[in-house]
Amino acid sequence: MQELKERIRREGQILSETVLKVDSFLNHQVDTELALRIGREFGQRFGGRGVTKVLTVEASGIQFAMAAGIALRVPFVYAKKKKAITQGEAVYAAPVYSFTRREAYQISIAEKYLGPSDRVLIVDDFLATGAALVGLADIVERSGAVLVGVGCVIEKSFQEGRFLLEERGIEVCSLARIVSMKPGEVQFAGEECNQKERITC
Amino acid sequence: MQELKERIRREGQILSETVLKVDSFLNHQVDTELALRIGREFGQRFGGRGVTKVLTVEASGIQFAMAAGIALRVPFVYAKKKKAITQGEAVYAAPVYSFTRREAYQISIAEKYLGPSDRVLIVDDFLATGAALVGLADIVERSGAVLVGVGCVIEKSFQEGRFLLEERGIEVCSLARIVSMKPGEVQFAGEECNQKERITC
Repeated sequence: MQELKERIRREGQILSETVLKVDSFLNHQVDTELALRIGREFGQRFGGRGVTKVLTVEASGIQFAMAAGIALRVPFVYAKKKKAITQGEAVYAAPVYSFTRREAYQISIAEKYLGPSDRVLIVDDFLATGAALVGLADIVERSGAVLVGVGCVIEKSFQEGRFLLEERGIEVCSLARIVSMKPGEVQFAGEECNQKERITC
Repeated sequence: MQELKERIRREGQILSETVLKVDSFLNHQVDTELALRIGREFGQRFGGRGVTKVLTVEASGIQFAMAAGIALRVPFVYAKKKKAITQGEAVYAAPVYSFTRREAYQISIAEKYLGPSDRVLIVDDFLATGAALVGLADIVERSGAVLVGVGCVIEKSFQEGRFLLEERGIEVCSLARIVSMKPGEVQFAGEECNQKERITC
């Protein structure tokens, strides 16, 4: 998604070879119109495949799950990171380790919101180590739902997330695949060979 | 908002006289189309007043801030509940006590995303004790921005949140105001005197 890559180049802050900050337009302050276009992009790539529900994890996946839900005209569900006292029912849970926050947590989804009749598209802002997305994929599998695919806004291709998902046979589509980065410079997949957009999925 | 009240009556689970669960359509599984209509409702009530930014707090406010942002064609910002390692800059912070989760936490917003040139609409899913919303209002005041108003999806009018905001001179608009509830029964404001929608703001 060319517009997204340009925004990452223009506004992204590369703090190290692994940490990219995009909180001016994606995950703290959110460019609403861009988020909608990102959702339409997921809609185009996963439309016509019977998706009944979009799934993400709170908090920074919500705006993109909502945008994909708008495009696909389906509801979305976001996994909670903690069990609130109002969430007292049976849940699917999975452990996740966050490298960004350097802590382990549990994600959970009420069982009644995911079942064998669902066809699920998982959406998130980042694909890096894949920890949260593998946890979500495990939950989808346990629920008996069909996992149609995973859509990520930004992928750090130099980390193992895509590999971990693909070795489970999961289709992964990222709108901007970063193959390497360092302060002041970001290299996207497909740019050297001019394959542009096609290679991103 | 009549549609919202009907959904609360039909799908809301009243666990006690203070706890209402609406996670089948608002804040765990989200009815995307309803969320968009909620955003349009906020857009109608706060449109034409120069709002430059919608503000909320993660996680369950995000879908409504996004919907309001879509309606008003402005970006939104969500306050973070913890400081991530990628959020290293100057922030506005405020302490909040969550009665639902029974824990204290801190909300924060990067200073660069809120300033004197902004006119802010705060949006959240619930107005009850007002803790998070008062924290957000404090942050807006410190930033020098103008607070245009607060829009809530559901208000528990029997708790002190509205009072705390109004005594600061803040305009509060809730789309469904609950004056009392108990398992199997919910009473909305304005119903006894047939004032319907007008009284909700």
